[in-house]
Amino acid sequence: MLEELKATVLAANLELPRAGLVTLTWGNASGQDRETGLVVIKPSGVPYDAMTVEDMVVVDSEGRVVEGERRPSTDTPTHLALYRGLPGVSGVVHTHSTWATAWAQARRSIPVFGTTHADLCPGDVPVTDPLTPEDVLSGYEFATGSKIISIVAGRSPQEVPAVLVNGHGPFCWGSSAADAVVTAITLESVAKMAWLTVALDPAAVPLPEHIVARHFTRKHGSGAYYGQP
Amino acid sequence: MLEELKATVLAANLELPRAGLVTLTWGNASGQDRETGLVVIKPSGVPYDAMTVEDMVVVDSEGRVVEGERRPSTDTPTHLALYRGLPGVSGVVHTHSTWATAWAQARRSIPVFGTTHADLCPGDVPVTDPLTPEDVLSGYEFATGSKIISIVAGRSPQEVPAVLVNGHGPFCWGSSAADAVVTAITLESVAKMAWLTVALDPAAVPLPEHIVARHFTRKHGSGAYYGQP
Amino acid sequence: MLEELKATVLAANLELPRAGLVTLTWGNASGQDRETGLVVIKPSGVPYDAMTVEDMVVVDSEGRVVEGERRPSTDTPTHLALYRGLPGVSGVVHTHSTWATAWAQARRSIPVFGTTHADLCPGDVPVTDPLTPEDVLSGYEFATGSKIISIVAGRSPQEVPAVLVNGHGPFCWGSSAADAVVTAITLESVAKMAWLTVALDPAAVPLPEHIVARHFTRKHGSGAYYGQP
Amino acid sequence: MLEELKATVLAANLELPRAGLVTLTWGNASGQDRETGLVVIKPSGVPYDAMTVEDMVVVDSEGRVVEGERRPSTDTPTHLALYRGLPGVSGVVHTHSTWATAWAQARRSIPVFGTTHADLCPGDVPVTDPLTPEDVLSGYEFATGSKIISIVAGRSPQEVPAVLVNGHGPFCWGSSAADAVVTAITLESVAKMAWLTVALDPAAVPLPEHIVARHFTRKHGSGAYYGQP
Repeated sequence: MLEELKATVLAANLELPRAGLVTLTWGNASGQDRETGLVVIKPSGVPYDAMTVEDMVVVDSEGRVVEGERRPSTDTPTHLALYRGLPGVSGVVHTHSTWATAWAQARRSIPVFGTTHADLCPGDVPVTDPLTPEDVLSGYEFATGSKIISIVAGRSPQEVPAVLVNGHGPFCWGSSAADAVVTAITLESVAKMAWLTVALDPAAVPLPEHIVARHFTRKHGSGAYYGQP
Repeated sequence: MLEELKATVLAANLELPRAGLVTLTWGNASGQDRETGLVVIKPSGVPYDAMTVEDMVVVDSEGRVVEGERRPSTDTPTHLALYRGLPGVSGVVHTHSTWATAWAQARRSIPVFGTTHADLCPGDVPVTDPLTPEDVLSGYEFATGSKIISIVAGRSPQEVPAVLVNGHGPFCWGSSAADAVVTAITLESVAKMAWLTVALDPAAVPLPEHIVARHFTRKHGSGAYYGQP
Repeated sequence: MLEELKATVLAANLELPRAGLVTLTWGNASGQDRETGLVVIKPSGVPYDAMTVEDMVVVDSEGRVVEGERRPSTDTPTHLALYRGLPGVSGVVHTHSTWATAWAQARRSIPVFGTTHADLCPGDVPVTDPLTPEDVLSGYEFATGSKIISIVAGRSPQEVPAVLVNGHGPFCWGSSAADAVVTAITLESVAKMAWLTVALDPAAVPLPEHIVARHFTRKHGSGAYYGQP
Repeated sequence: MLEELKATVLAANLELPRAGLVTLTWGNASGQDRETGLVVIKPSGVPYDAMTVEDMVVVDSEGRVVEGERRPSTDTPTHLALYRGLPGVSGVVHTHSTWATAWAQARRSIPVFGTTHADLCPGDVPVTDPLTPEDVLSGYEFATGSKIISIVAGRSPQEVPAVLVNGHGPFCWGSSAADAVVTAITLESVAKMAWLTVALDPAAVPLPEHIVARHFTRKHGSGAYYGQP
């Protein structure tokens, strides 16, 4: 079942180490089938160089395995929480990519210092509140998803395509698994350049609003004119 | 038409990700035909690994497509402004290369800290003034070109072969698209070493003028003795 | 003798430069045969690209060569001290990997700033006391091992899977040579992200204990649920 | 003539970009024939990927071309000054490698912060005095060599195997061109780790003398026991 989705989710997972976002097995990509709501996700702790379409796991919205021989990613409850809470999202990627994780560990949101960031989204990449002991006990991975959704609240997942989990690392999303990978690659580049910017000038100021708006709408929304028609 | 120029512009574009200057589709190279004034430029948002000579777009000095199936780079008006305003320039490259962009985001010019920089140019790599809301409304990409030209003013494009656009990234040029790529590679290396220098010593001083002059004239001008005759 | 162990120790050594942890010949991996207590280790100063199974050296617990044409790594006495002092350890890796070595040279332990670190171990990666002139005279490499063991003291080698030798670099271990390589790769990634974190915020605080515990037990011990059953 | 030496000098030059020490054409390696005193050196400004044995240039101790179709490296007078002034040196390498150049641009010597450095040499990697306008006029490249020799003065070229030229970059040497490449690779690694160390702790202190001495003599001199006999 869902053979095409499995192939794209596998391809998205394999792109993560190739793009330098994942070391060892520290990352996962998933994609949702819009019709059935079923989610295809990476298996837990399987080396990337041996991963095949058969290793992909199909789970329902409660996390029950519908198809597949493998145990799904331990982060599956977080992915499912995001599909439930973020309308229009059909792909999710989680990594411990170096520079984005440094911001997450320093518990700082990434300000919009330049047009590369504005091409991705018009505001800060926010960092979640820390999980309380009660959050951890109540279901650690699901609570992580809830924290992410609560910080997006009031904005669309297109305006906030990624969030840094406090002391952990980034979760990214998009209209497909491949699109979420593009978000993850962009975020890591933005995180590195923002780090270098504040190291060069701790008082660096964000890009003015009129330039942010121009860049974001050049690539997103009905007036976009970037790319091919 | 312009088959040879198209091949060199394609090669220049493909060199950008290979040299680590471009992530995803964030960069573009163009070349101008000196006889006709026509410009060959990269298409907008097309992945590098699938790009062919047929994707190259030929535009006239007003940005009208003269040949090609693709929509040209959204930065085309900036390229055209540079060809018009910078005498002797027949190649332009734009990237969001990491270290040069960090300086652009911190809104600082890059001082001449060493001979690697002096081999490229004898003065700071300047950063433009920020675009005003009026600039953005009047034609964002063209206004970007005007800001670049106004900061070069009074010096030759050989003395100032690259400019950092405020909060955005570098534009580089040369006597051909290939030459502009060499400028872009050199600038990124210079930007990284300058960043590391000021981090090691925030009060680092520029290279003395007599050494700057010697290095620049070793590679440029009638007394140059670097390379093969 | 020990042909299987030799093959895995060779593979572990070859993985070190591939993972970017070793420059030139600055690193070594070994593995211990649990039945006989014999140790297979890399030869000293042999280039990685020419290394074969025949170059591996078998030594006994006193460092006497039992089999092999080569002189064993100069760090052999340190490896042997670790096998003797750390119960359950059957693989050891030493490198001068860049970011972990920077912490060792700054003589600072690496705090648990995030979940990547907590996935490896639940506490700081400690740095040893400096060796005294008497330590150096008494047997430099053996004394290095003693310093490492004394700082692990009171905790298990699973809780402290790596130590930074003061002014030198990391020693890492695990249940096999391959497992020790995973420790070394993880440590280098953790060291880099911790470095970037304190540079972004010199007052960065460690991850709360309840999240550290959850991550460590997700991957280690009887309640682990990461990976395949 | 000197076909074997030409082959080793070519190999040494090709190793420089492969090891990440050279961008574009910014580096050069040479080797001296001990019997005749003739020097084989890289041609000036020739791309590495097209370089062959035929491009190597043979010069005498005055810099006159004895064999070869190419113009020799512009840094030839510096190489010749080093062969004349540093006894036992038969290979020289010059690069603009990123981290070593950052120290040269900040005009700071690299302290011995760890054993990786002590394995190379027992003291700081010194930075030269700046060249005066008179030095530049008198023969820029030769004067560069004189500054290097004057800072080594009183120590052997084995104790000081590399020097940072003020505002420029490193010159490295050894008993052959291949040995000088090893010096250059080691220096760049040492420079990066020292940079990361002082960024982590601006008051970082050098390694104690008794550990420096032990490491240096482990690899160098009559008591060396590193490597194969």
